[in-house]
Amino acid sequence: MKSIQVCLSPALINLYSLEQTTVVVTDVLRATSTMIAALELGVKHIIPVASREEALTYVTTPDTLVAGERDGKKVEGFHLGNSPLVLQTNKELIKGKQLVITTTNGTKAIDQSSHAKEIYIGALSNVQALANHLKHNTNDILIVCAGWKNRVNMEDTLFAGALLDCLQIEFSIKGDAAIMSHQLYQANRDGLFTSIQKATHYKRLKDHGIEDDIKYCMTENSSQIVAKVKNGKIITV
Amino acid sequence: MKSIQVCLSPALINLYSLEQTTVVVTDVLRATSTMIAALELGVKHIIPVASREEALTYVTTPDTLVAGERDGKKVEGFHLGNSPLVLQTNKELIKGKQLVITTTNGTKAIDQSSHAKEIYIGALSNVQALANHLKHNTNDILIVCAGWKNRVNMEDTLFAGALLDCLQIEFSIKGDAAIMSHQLYQANRDGLFTSIQKATHYKRLKDHGIEDDIKYCMTENSSQIVAKVKNGKIITV
Repeated sequence: MKSIQVCLSPALINLYSLEQTTVVVTDVLRATSTMIAALELGVKHIIPVASREEALTYVTTPDTLVAGERDGKKVEGFHLGNSPLVLQTNKELIKGKQLVITTTNGTKAIDQSSHAKEIYIGALSNVQALANHLKHNTNDILIVCAGWKNRVNMEDTLFAGALLDCLQIEFSIKGDAAIMSHQLYQANRDGLFTSIQKATHYKRLKDHGIEDDIKYCMTENSSQIVAKVKNGKIITV
Repeated sequence: MKSIQVCLSPALINLYSLEQTTVVVTDVLRATSTMIAALELGVKHIIPVASREEALTYVTTPDTLVAGERDGKKVEGFHLGNSPLVLQTNKELIKGKQLVITTTNGTKAIDQSSHAKEIYIGALSNVQALANHLKHNTNDILIVCAGWKNRVNMEDTLFAGALLDCLQIEFSIKGDAAIMSHQLYQANRDGLFTSIQKATHYKRLKDHGIEDDIKYCMTENSSQIVAKVKNGKIITV
């Protein structure tokens, strides 16, 4: 039987063999939630870049928008921050464009997973759609939690638990990190937004006045988008 | 208010500042449980060593017993394995001796915490006694889970949650790893042995025929011992 595992921090990624594995990268607050929202709103594709400097080289490229944050705040010189709700209010602006995005943790986790067989992007907003797609996958799966500067965090662990919950029939849950993620999700599934209000990152982001963004990110299954990294771009499958 | 944090794997220890911190190292299955049992049975002190080679140099030292395991099994040439119950059946042999011990994860985690202000040894068997002692500590506390070859594990996380639960009045629980550990303990506290039967390490150890050892290690508060590292030795406080 195929297995599904969880890597709770990018600093632990070298403990897992990626070459034959399907990786799902998640950064619920907010990189991967923003990516799923952007694809839902009709961006052509997304280019995740690890550094601010690389992102800035795209600022004057035609039909391109540059989005992202560092330490939770929009980067100076970028068109947009890292907010699904701000994207929604700019629907007409972003439709059909290419979106370049860099964030504190999420885009780095994608970069660190680059030697995987394939990489999907996951968020609570598309967890069931992603699970429906992955049910037929013939590889072992590793969920890579982006965390916060290599620290384990609650929201990405809850996403891991949610995806495990959807895939527990088709895949065997392997390793204690996966068992723990699943238990935490089961304990909090009826109040994901409430559960996150105790978490560290919530307090950090709340100070930036983006509580509605967090509510959106902590809500399951608002989107049917399935997204994958292909040739350095994130596209809708 | 002083804080209490959890480091879920020794591979994440560089994310925490140790110099002014009281560290509690735990390796529930079985290094730190064995250490607490040994002190309870009257060993003079314990010398934790990181390598098998270093441990072997003590084999012919008078009044010394060498104990330990690699990959869960007793090391050839050592007097004893890494089992609290085997120690109990050798009570007369070990009383008053110095015990040299090396294990796959636990003694390495002690080694990696060596620049902390002070280091305590924790196990489920002495969690309440340790908490009673630490209540009056004026430093921030970091619980370092030894894990399994740098992977996060269930039993050490449950110990972290148990210690947090005892200290939540006196210390503020800081960081998502700590919040998650506490939730997992609360969800499993009435059946710690049952909860571990799903875990990876249980399956590994059960194959070695030491289920009774695991039951002992997963039982809270059988000992009143408080143990600390002092000048490279683990002693009763």
